[in-house]
Amino acid sequence: MQFQVSNELILRLKDLIQEKNDTRLLEIFNELHFADVAEIINELSPFEATYIIKLLDSEKTSDALMELEEDVRERILNKLSAKEIAEEVEELDTDDAADILAELPEERAETVISEIEDEEHAEHIVELLRYDEDTAGGLMAKELVQVNENWTVSRCVFEMRKQAENVTRVHSIYVVDQNNKLKGRLSLKDLLTASTKTYIKEVYIPKVDFVRVDDEGEEVARIMTKYDLEAIPVVDHNDVLKGRITIDDIVDFIKDEAEKDYQMAAGISQDVEADDNIWELTRARLPWLVLGLLGGLGSVSIMGNFHSALEQYPTLFFYTPLIAAMAGNVGVQSSAIIVQGLANDVVKGSLWNRLVKEIGLSLINGIALALLLILFGVIMGNEMLFNLTVALALILVIIVAALVGTFVPIILDKKGIDPAIATGPFITTSNDIFGIFLFFYIAKLILGF
Amino acid sequence: MQFQVSNELILRLKDLIQEKNDTRLLEIFNELHFADVAEIINELSPFEATYIIKLLDSEKTSDALMELEEDVRERILNKLSAKEIAEEVEELDTDDAADILAELPEERAETVISEIEDEEHAEHIVELLRYDEDTAGGLMAKELVQVNENWTVSRCVFEMRKQAENVTRVHSIYVVDQNNKLKGRLSLKDLLTASTKTYIKEVYIPKVDFVRVDDEGEEVARIMTKYDLEAIPVVDHNDVLKGRITIDDIVDFIKDEAEKDYQMAAGISQDVEADDNIWELTRARLPWLVLGLLGGLGSVSIMGNFHSALEQYPTLFFYTPLIAAMAGNVGVQSSAIIVQGLANDVVKGSLWNRLVKEIGLSLINGIALALLLILFGVIMGNEMLFNLTVALALILVIIVAALVGTFVPIILDKKGIDPAIATGPFITTSNDIFGIFLFFYIAKLILGF
Repeated sequence: MQFQVSNELILRLKDLIQEKNDTRLLEIFNELHFADVAEIINELSPFEATYIIKLLDSEKTSDALMELEEDVRERILNKLSAKEIAEEVEELDTDDAADILAELPEERAETVISEIEDEEHAEHIVELLRYDEDTAGGLMAKELVQVNENWTVSRCVFEMRKQAENVTRVHSIYVVDQNNKLKGRLSLKDLLTASTKTYIKEVYIPKVDFVRVDDEGEEVARIMTKYDLEAIPVVDHNDVLKGRITIDDIVDFIKDEAEKDYQMAAGISQDVEADDNIWELTRARLPWLVLGLLGGLGSVSIMGNFHSALEQYPTLFFYTPLIAAMAGNVGVQSSAIIVQGLANDVVKGSLWNRLVKEIGLSLINGIALALLLILFGVIMGNEMLFNLTVALALILVIIVAALVGTFVPIILDKKGIDPAIATGPFITTSNDIFGIFLFFYIAKLILGF
Repeated sequence: MQFQVSNELILRLKDLIQEKNDTRLLEIFNELHFADVAEIINELSPFEATYIIKLLDSEKTSDALMELEEDVRERILNKLSAKEIAEEVEELDTDDAADILAELPEERAETVISEIEDEEHAEHIVELLRYDEDTAGGLMAKELVQVNENWTVSRCVFEMRKQAENVTRVHSIYVVDQNNKLKGRLSLKDLLTASTKTYIKEVYIPKVDFVRVDDEGEEVARIMTKYDLEAIPVVDHNDVLKGRITIDDIVDFIKDEAEKDYQMAAGISQDVEADDNIWELTRARLPWLVLGLLGGLGSVSIMGNFHSALEQYPTLFFYTPLIAAMAGNVGVQSSAIIVQGLANDVVKGSLWNRLVKEIGLSLINGIALALLLILFGVIMGNEMLFNLTVALALILVIIVAALVGTFVPIILDKKGIDPAIATGPFITTSNDIFGIFLFFYIAKLILGF
């Protein structure tokens, strides 16, 4: 299978759109999965994309809309009437529907909601829009199968059939009491083997994992991956069942988070893509570069203060990019490991043990690198005292850089700040400055200039 | 719910183990989910862990074993007999069982396999061990529900009941022909509504997504997330159904890959964790630091060649860490965006367009930073020609650094090398050298020393 969207197909579709050959277009698109339709729409002009959206059934295009990049979707939605958007929204599960409406200007969103024919669907969407995007409430959908503990098995099967019509995949059957409080779950097997007159309360499984509406998305992801769950119910603070989150949404969430962390470590502050425009990319990149520049200017000032070394030991200045690079690299390595450890909850033991370990590790790395540095100095014919000074300074710089890289994220984490911001340019820049200062300070102590 | 493993619980369990209070231990552990059992075992000594593994039912401990960190699992498996390991393996799905056996020394793995009582299970494991770890074959499990297209619905239901006993969660029912070739899938709904004498070939859905045994894990992850699949069948090159991959394994795979990329970008070459020992951490970190050191020594040599500038323009040397830092930062930003774009398949358009865009982006960033640099120079009372020289050099260095950061990953990708290795220390180090050379070269051209 592995269908691939080819350039030929795109060109052909563009021609067919120009010819308004709807019959042929419908034939082609009806064969395609909505994810492939989305890939095609990404390649079309807004006019062509809108033409296709209007031509095809909302059942197919609504899911394709969800897969589009946000800016492409925005351009298309701008070309659709509120009524047309409402038709798409009507086909979507409530979680996706709420996500689309959250992207619209408030007034337009309200108009769209008023155009939705299914009143319950509209109410559900309005409810979901109240939750924070990155919480369990913002991730959940209202579509689920729930049964009352006081029902008999036969009533339960009857009610389930009705509910299942709205639910694409039945992951679990949740059991609630008369106040809609979550009590447990029901296995399909038990339901099918129990006699029709049995009450649900006699057969349900009272143990069920759940999250609360205001739990963070990261916490939901952690629980669902830890316990290998394909769906998890969401309850409010009175234990009332409000919705459920499925694993496919969590997969998207995990991927997004990983990309954000990766970009953060590379000094990119907003979620951008290679194909975003030049201004979006500048906005994401320039702030970190300015930080780096200010750090560099800090180094210039520090060296200005040590300019007395220029006469006797000008070579010292040749080593500053090396010292800065090593301080930066060691800092990024230490912080990356700690940031990941904090995210995965594997950083245990006392701070004291961690301190001893980081110093030990830096000593091993530092001594190995210092030996290489001395070897280079000997080959270059440098004075031995000079070589030893640079080597000693390198070891100390590495130790300090590792400690900064380790403890800055830990401290940020304790203060409730995302430690991921501490990797990349932030650690590199501060370690550059520390490193260069330390290097000259030690050189001055030993060589005396 | 949200059970949390507390230090108190760990201490209490350690005491109970010392007292050999098996009754109480069993009471406590029987209440726990296997993922929590794993978290507890991670905190116990190898002796205590083995005690618990031997005490509890294999049904619970086998899944817990799978959740342990690899080195903890290795220490425990070393303390178990082949017979005891075989009992654990017997409880696991074939994919997990094969993963555990792959970690054992070959001879011991063979002994364990010979101790497995269920012959079919053993054969399945041996088959899975033949596939590469990171391919669909290495990720799949043999547990699935398959029916023959020539069966009637009633035979199908009968056979399915037998198969379902071995399968924890039935994701899909796959339809094969008499040669076990994958033909399609069956919806539970159609099966239940069709008359018992209908042949499967009359009711099954012939459209089904699948992957081949030697497809890369990344490709499987891409397809499953793109099409929101919870399970996908795996076939060999004759279309024979060999196994199936479920989304929970793909979630783990995606998380592992994201962590590896993140570490690679931070200059950590092996999959390590904050709590690994000092030698493992050194092995993962030192090689990249040596690369950085060699790059730094390259800069020392370059500056040696421009030492004639020392007399007239010593301040130039104060700017080298700044130039190196900017070259490194810009390079890492550019490469991170491209590497992610390549991974997500969103890097489109011609190389020529990308070239123009990167140069434009660098010009904007470069000019903004150059203005700041000139401002600093004016405040410091530097000569204007000097300021302009440094500023021009900075702009050119940024453009070159962005181009290196963009095109090195693209070239690597075209040559079939993982572009992720090109971020982090690799790009930083090469850009440091390029940048410093370019800086002095331009300064020499303009200032003439």
